[in-house]
Amino acid sequence: MSLAIAHLGPPGTYTEEAALAYAKWLTATQDVTVTLCPYSSNAQTLRSTAAGETQIAVAPVENSVEGSVAVTLDTLWQLDQLQIQQALVLPIVHALISTASNLTQLKAIYSHPQAFGQCQRWLEQFLPQVQLIPSNSNTEALVHLKDNPTLGAIASQQAAQLYQLPVLACPINDYADNCTRFWVVRLRNDSADQPELLTNGTYTSLAFSVPANVPGALVKPLQIFADRQINLSRIESRPSKRSLGDYIFFVDLESPLGSTAVQSVLAEIGPHTEILKVLGSYPILAI
Amino acid sequence: MSLAIAHLGPPGTYTEEAALAYAKWLTATQDVTVTLCPYSSNAQTLRSTAAGETQIAVAPVENSVEGSVAVTLDTLWQLDQLQIQQALVLPIVHALISTASNLTQLKAIYSHPQAFGQCQRWLEQFLPQVQLIPSNSNTEALVHLKDNPTLGAIASQQAAQLYQLPVLACPINDYADNCTRFWVVRLRNDSADQPELLTNGTYTSLAFSVPANVPGALVKPLQIFADRQINLSRIESRPSKRSLGDYIFFVDLESPLGSTAVQSVLAEIGPHTEILKVLGSYPILAI
Repeated sequence: MSLAIAHLGPPGTYTEEAALAYAKWLTATQDVTVTLCPYSSNAQTLRSTAAGETQIAVAPVENSVEGSVAVTLDTLWQLDQLQIQQALVLPIVHALISTASNLTQLKAIYSHPQAFGQCQRWLEQFLPQVQLIPSNSNTEALVHLKDNPTLGAIASQQAAQLYQLPVLACPINDYADNCTRFWVVRLRNDSADQPELLTNGTYTSLAFSVPANVPGALVKPLQIFADRQINLSRIESRPSKRSLGDYIFFVDLESPLGSTAVQSVLAEIGPHTEILKVLGSYPILAI
Repeated sequence: MSLAIAHLGPPGTYTEEAALAYAKWLTATQDVTVTLCPYSSNAQTLRSTAAGETQIAVAPVENSVEGSVAVTLDTLWQLDQLQIQQALVLPIVHALISTASNLTQLKAIYSHPQAFGQCQRWLEQFLPQVQLIPSNSNTEALVHLKDNPTLGAIASQQAAQLYQLPVLACPINDYADNCTRFWVVRLRNDSADQPELLTNGTYTSLAFSVPANVPGALVKPLQIFADRQINLSRIESRPSKRSLGDYIFFVDLESPLGSTAVQSVLAEIGPHTEILKVLGSYPILAI
């Protein structure tokens, strides 16, 4: 079987690195061949799998320094046909890439805003006067660097190798323990070959909205989790986009979907939510 | 008394609009004069007040479509000396500003990534081929538009007037009920003139971290809010930046700080948190 894996491009992004690691694990454990397909945004990556153009999408969910990747959560909420199959955790080591011979030559640096956030103190200390220009991915700007030593970009050392560009400084991330968590998603039931929703994953991710303008609406679902002693490893709110103060909650439970505790919570929480979605139950693969 | 109000610049940003509305309210209700001081980031805006360069900072906290402004939460967590004095809610109406005679002339559009997110569907429908170039504020790119009709920017109609540029389309935001909530912050006790922490605000905002790697650490504080029947209007998590899965929680309570319920919660929650901060108790001013 041949599988197309969608990820944020162009080649050399951290998401591609995560997708490559997943592909390696997949081909080592299953009788499949894989092709990587770069897309220009995380939303397009996820939509390609929902539309059946690709069989698997790899998208970042959160970084240990910069937090949630909002577009991934918002898009998954909209695309009911997708399910999380696996989580991947990738250590992130940022490099400053440039043909400049030293830091003083640099006038502007390109990168994704998340990478600027993860290197903020380093940039303030060593390059306080340099202009920071946001781009749609870490590697988008690399093609422009070759002929201009006043420009730099923040991406991985692997990306520098791929684009045959020198690394001027590395690591430049403010926190050594910088990691990004990715979700691997698939169609819920796109064919008989595809697995059903796992029920024995280490984690179970839910998303739910609560009735708007009802006092105490959020407290009730939280109380149900608390009463059942289910450990929440994460709770994240995203706006419903309808009005200020109206949210969708994304909750990661440290229990399998098939466990009695989670099944009880799902039954109890239902009447207190407006829309309740099980995004998936999945194991974690450390890269 | 003369007060300097810091906000994200250059002139014409939505944050300046919020700061102007607050200044108007302030001069109408108190015997003060005000000066507006633009800064190039929300972090710098807040730091200027913490350092005493300005007396008041106005910074966006969340938008009804795009969600939290992470840098505002992260910076307030770091700057202990600041307190929230007031919340402001500003309706956001985005305009496409350009000297182009029609949409087909446009090749690239500048704006803050938050504004692109708020106009995503409009942009996909009417300008699918146009390059979206992120900038540090909505108004940063306006100075470059005058002589190039292939360029556009997304900002307010007031900004178009200020920079004497034509509005090509308005409103272009996907959701009519698009609002941004701002916090007005001051030093906790910078002089006898400054008010103490309010205890009778409509809302009370807390931030806390829970012990890392302790199972159920998050459930306990949530259970205390639930048991006391205090309505949470918002719960937001931000990474502690130490490691993946280690968060700081920002909670808005719909109760005054001085109320018995909130005082009980603070006493009870203390032992279950690692660091607990009262960010402020404040009324809301709709603009």
